[in-house]
Amino acid sequence: MSVTFADIEAAAARIKGHAVETPLIESPALNDRLGLRVLIKPETLQRVGAFKFRGAYNRLVQLNADERKRGVVAFSSGNHAQGVALAAKLLGMPALIVMPSDAPAIKVANTRGYGAEIKLYDRLTENREAIAAAVSAERGAVVVPAFDDPHIIAGQGTVGLELMRQAEALGALPDVVIAPVGGGGLMAGTATAVKALSPRTAMVGVEPEAFDDTLRSLQAGERIVTKPTGRSLCDALESPAPGELTFPVLMKTIADIALVSDAEVAEAMRYAFSTLKLVVEPGGSVGLAALLAGKVKLFGGKTVGLVLSGGNVDPELFARVVRGEI
Amino acid sequence: MSVTFADIEAAAARIKGHAVETPLIESPALNDRLGLRVLIKPETLQRVGAFKFRGAYNRLVQLNADERKRGVVAFSSGNHAQGVALAAKLLGMPALIVMPSDAPAIKVANTRGYGAEIKLYDRLTENREAIAAAVSAERGAVVVPAFDDPHIIAGQGTVGLELMRQAEALGALPDVVIAPVGGGGLMAGTATAVKALSPRTAMVGVEPEAFDDTLRSLQAGERIVTKPTGRSLCDALESPAPGELTFPVLMKTIADIALVSDAEVAEAMRYAFSTLKLVVEPGGSVGLAALLAGKVKLFGGKTVGLVLSGGNVDPELFARVVRGEI
Repeated sequence: MSVTFADIEAAAARIKGHAVETPLIESPALNDRLGLRVLIKPETLQRVGAFKFRGAYNRLVQLNADERKRGVVAFSSGNHAQGVALAAKLLGMPALIVMPSDAPAIKVANTRGYGAEIKLYDRLTENREAIAAAVSAERGAVVVPAFDDPHIIAGQGTVGLELMRQAEALGALPDVVIAPVGGGGLMAGTATAVKALSPRTAMVGVEPEAFDDTLRSLQAGERIVTKPTGRSLCDALESPAPGELTFPVLMKTIADIALVSDAEVAEAMRYAFSTLKLVVEPGGSVGLAALLAGKVKLFGGKTVGLVLSGGNVDPELFARVVRGEI
Repeated sequence: MSVTFADIEAAAARIKGHAVETPLIESPALNDRLGLRVLIKPETLQRVGAFKFRGAYNRLVQLNADERKRGVVAFSSGNHAQGVALAAKLLGMPALIVMPSDAPAIKVANTRGYGAEIKLYDRLTENREAIAAAVSAERGAVVVPAFDDPHIIAGQGTVGLELMRQAEALGALPDVVIAPVGGGGLMAGTATAVKALSPRTAMVGVEPEAFDDTLRSLQAGERIVTKPTGRSLCDALESPAPGELTFPVLMKTIADIALVSDAEVAEAMRYAFSTLKLVVEPGGSVGLAALLAGKVKLFGGKTVGLVLSGGNVDPELFARVVRGEI
């Protein structure tokens, strides 16, 4: 059962007053540099520092009393973890989060700080879904996937809903909307909202070069699960495949996928630091990286919606990036 | 002739479409930590990365054709420099900026990047006003002071005007408004706007401990020019005295001045990085530093307007701060 525009509007009503309605901002400097009008949606300013709080809250608030007592279990590289942990805390239910042992320390610490229990796993040798399923069976906890869940997708879709409405309030209509693609939850939800309001707006996804699973899947016409051969700076976008629920939506809505290198990502983070004065994590900056590198197909458009999906980056890594060491 | 609310409204009309109307943002995390409702006005997101662009544009746009041909000269630690340089570029007039030789490299580079000519001086041994006056006499250029000018003060006052109107749109009324105090231009303008709209809102200024000239002046009832004995992390707030035009306004409107140490400033910058996901320069973060350190007299208030005045900080310094080396 696919996510509809009505689902996204319902999600918006549920998260109102809990998630932050992040402002739509413009940087004359960025506009001048690109010769475009870029409408920036900074989910870095969202609760837990990433858009993931939206989907997590939308999902958890719909759990009944019995489910809430049993609690939730989620697996996540870090932002969904924090989103679920905080939503669970706000709603008064226990949460166990299965996280890769090499997740950014800030994401692990924040998740713990919200009161969640954490189970670390080895990203390359263990299967996170299997671990979460085992925990769920053991405790009767509700599994909250990071993207393959209609309520999660609908929650993330509120990013697109807000972006379009805020753009309209400025008298602007995005020709293109750019968003990072990991498992595809943000893109699937955002595309659903955007296309409902403006079918001609093109959706452009961005992936790290080393994790181009969605591009390959779209080209093949079916989900391709890639075997991770290396790492990317973009810890948040290292899903080996687009989601089962998200992929059909991506197939229907995505006009193009751009790939960015770690070097381009670091450049974008530096630009965000020096010119936008925003702290953006690697995975959150891929859309900006693609724009700065001239890799985004604009289809003749001039007004671009750009989602900066999160800002949870370890100080050590951020320091190295701003100093140009990466 | 003192600056009036009408002057600030006129300034707002002049800068509209040129300066950015920075969003008013809230951080649930900050609100929870302090038990307050903090309405953040991030002038870090302003054009040139600091509120200074507002006053500079408001002043320069009012120059007549002959004055524009002769150009402008300004002296500044860096943010006013960038503001004047960019405004001059946009309005098509030459600009010479007199800057301390130890100004943050990013501020010097940006000023140069906007096409201004730069003259460096030694902060501790040379007199910047004298240098600027000499240049002005030589070229017939119009001197644009960093704060002691009614058009500059009115321009900066648009920060307060926007803050109050944006708060009203949220159904909120600040009990206290906090802003950094260097020469006092931002505070004088902002206080004029705030008090006109809400006389009972208390204005609280914040200075670095090492540059408490405004506090001492307010206590003495007259301008005290301090002799700089050391440095502060807050390069933007190292004026040795409040301005001649600004001081009477500060006397009338400031309810309290808080002083913050460099350590508290570094802590605030780290908090802005890790929790607000904002890049804030040392001088720009003093209000946040005072709040986090519990040094702000709130007069029983719960809703606080907080101006983050700028985000122009060298990557090297920022890296050291986020790593905890400072």
